[in-house]
Amino acid sequence: MKVDGIHYRSIWLNDDGWSVDIIDQTHLPHEFIIRSLRTVEAAAEAIAAMRVRGAPLIGATAAYGLALAMRAEPGDEALAQACDRLLATRPTASNLQWALGRMHPQLAELPPAQRAEAAYALAAALCDEDVAINDAIGEHGLEVIRGLWAGREGAAALHVLTHCNAGWLATVDWGTALAPVYKAHDAGIPVHVWVDETRPRNQGAALTAWELKAHGVAHDVIVDNAGGHLMQHGLVDLVITGTDRTVRSGDVCNKIGTYLKALAARDNRVPFYVCLPSPTIDWALRDGVAEIPIEERDPREVTAISGKTRGGDIQSVQLTPDGVSARNFAFDVTPARLVTGLITERGICEASERGLLGLFPEQAEVAA
Amino acid sequence: MKVDGIHYRSIWLNDDGWSVDIIDQTHLPHEFIIRSLRTVEAAAEAIAAMRVRGAPLIGATAAYGLALAMRAEPGDEALAQACDRLLATRPTASNLQWALGRMHPQLAELPPAQRAEAAYALAAALCDEDVAINDAIGEHGLEVIRGLWAGREGAAALHVLTHCNAGWLATVDWGTALAPVYKAHDAGIPVHVWVDETRPRNQGAALTAWELKAHGVAHDVIVDNAGGHLMQHGLVDLVITGTDRTVRSGDVCNKIGTYLKALAARDNRVPFYVCLPSPTIDWALRDGVAEIPIEERDPREVTAISGKTRGGDIQSVQLTPDGVSARNFAFDVTPARLVTGLITERGICEASERGLLGLFPEQAEVAA
Repeated sequence: MKVDGIHYRSIWLNDDGWSVDIIDQTHLPHEFIIRSLRTVEAAAEAIAAMRVRGAPLIGATAAYGLALAMRAEPGDEALAQACDRLLATRPTASNLQWALGRMHPQLAELPPAQRAEAAYALAAALCDEDVAINDAIGEHGLEVIRGLWAGREGAAALHVLTHCNAGWLATVDWGTALAPVYKAHDAGIPVHVWVDETRPRNQGAALTAWELKAHGVAHDVIVDNAGGHLMQHGLVDLVITGTDRTVRSGDVCNKIGTYLKALAARDNRVPFYVCLPSPTIDWALRDGVAEIPIEERDPREVTAISGKTRGGDIQSVQLTPDGVSARNFAFDVTPARLVTGLITERGICEASERGLLGLFPEQAEVAA
Repeated sequence: MKVDGIHYRSIWLNDDGWSVDIIDQTHLPHEFIIRSLRTVEAAAEAIAAMRVRGAPLIGATAAYGLALAMRAEPGDEALAQACDRLLATRPTASNLQWALGRMHPQLAELPPAQRAEAAYALAAALCDEDVAINDAIGEHGLEVIRGLWAGREGAAALHVLTHCNAGWLATVDWGTALAPVYKAHDAGIPVHVWVDETRPRNQGAALTAWELKAHGVAHDVIVDNAGGHLMQHGLVDLVITGTDRTVRSGDVCNKIGTYLKALAARDNRVPFYVCLPSPTIDWALRDGVAEIPIEERDPREVTAISGKTRGGDIQSVQLTPDGVSARNFAFDVTPARLVTGLITERGICEASERGLLGLFPEQAEVAA
């Protein structure tokens, strides 16, 4: 999508032909900084420090990280070490496993001298695939929005609530949850987005708001606490979120707080859709609540926050009393029973094993 | 309760015999600042700017505000103007109406020369009553905690989740939702409190955490998004909140986000109790969602936040992109069907008109 009129992806090959450029998202929304990754360690650090985030973009960064590793040292040991290093960055992100699981065997069977070039080609193909997947998710989601809008005769806007950032900054381009919103906006439907700020890292207030503003989509930032009230009062027509990992049964792991919005949506009969590229599906798991390990992050993400001072500096401020104890769970799981539908690149299905296998019959063989 | 070993109430008469001292809660948890109110305007400003907050403390401050007004000018017009000024500060707080509605007629029938003294006496009595009410709520709530703890044989702690600050800083002393917690702690039950930070004003992260730390109660601050995940995993034994206004049917208006926690509690069979002093009950309303006007506050409370810098200064930082649009709804309503019980100074009842009238039969005559 566009920034200051120039089209960007969220990750791309530098003009030097080998460095990998990313938008350093830890500086958004206040500064637009491009960072060049030149080692696998830099790629791993970018993932762990959330300079890049969002399941598809994490996968793409890991893929290019492997390419950077192979350029530096293409031996078997280096290949295994690079995969291990990248896998250790974010335990919840199944796209990491997917991207590396796809590249590792293909690279391993090549002579070391051919691995770097092949890894770059595989990473580029993975990025192009992600864009195509999100474009398809956007088209399918657009039909959901068209259907709801057709039933809102005379309304000033169609109100969509989203949690976290599943926009183009979370993918290579388009986004997952926001792809249908961008498509609806471009098709002339007056969408308005309630943007959950998404504590503790405020990806909604920072990134989703930044994206929507850049693209000209109407929006209001709200605190994560507000969505239930809005739904009670008929001010939300649709909830759409992304997901970091969806299991075979349709249980959805996403940013902490998603489950609360799903409960409110059900209590108020608001449709709750989850957009997911198929690499996000973990076919090996069935019970999302019991089986998905939930990353617990540094409590300082809860007790302090950074923002822009009046002077324009970025500063971190402490929110809690000195020495307070805090906990920081990064994700939660929304049970399939609360999900109206899953929007994938192959179409929309109910959140169930039957629904998912209807779209992905080739996965029927995989044991859960 | 105690601060640095000294017992404080949240509002008290200054040693000069007429100024009214408060703890300026906008500076907590980083600075403990006492502010002397000397005019009704100062009292109104303290309420509107949330230097004092919490339904009972707002009522007490309004009562003393009226006393300050009568000391300055005790005529009928000044009395009416002072009531209007104080009522206009926070539209949702029914304690304001209750405190002023009780004092106004009593003062009006006195000769102006006697009004100031009477107003101070009425305000002091109102504060003492609040302390007695909260003490009783604490005792009744303690029985709920004792009952739950008796069923947790071998557990290391009894986990209580609370939202916002309904501790002693929200009342004159003891608190409402935290009164049972303090009583349980003092009785030797190992309570541990999950403290919702409570965006946008972070009363949990700032005030509840500060109170609990000062009193030595185990606690962890969490983002508002986390409670559902904790309940899914059996990490919450009890949710207790306060309320700004509860209607005749048992619908509970409280800080925005309370409704989401009530939904999660029901979904996970966690008891959800609301502590309410009876002045918080609005007997004239029946449908909380439809009838309670919800205050919408300055969106800058959402887009910026203040905290302590490394240098020790208090600084406000902007969280969102420049010029972003935001909305700031201050309360929501939890329908009675989601509330396990209401804990009042007269005992515990089900969240229903029948339940409330069982404890307050004298209100049966009031038309809803």
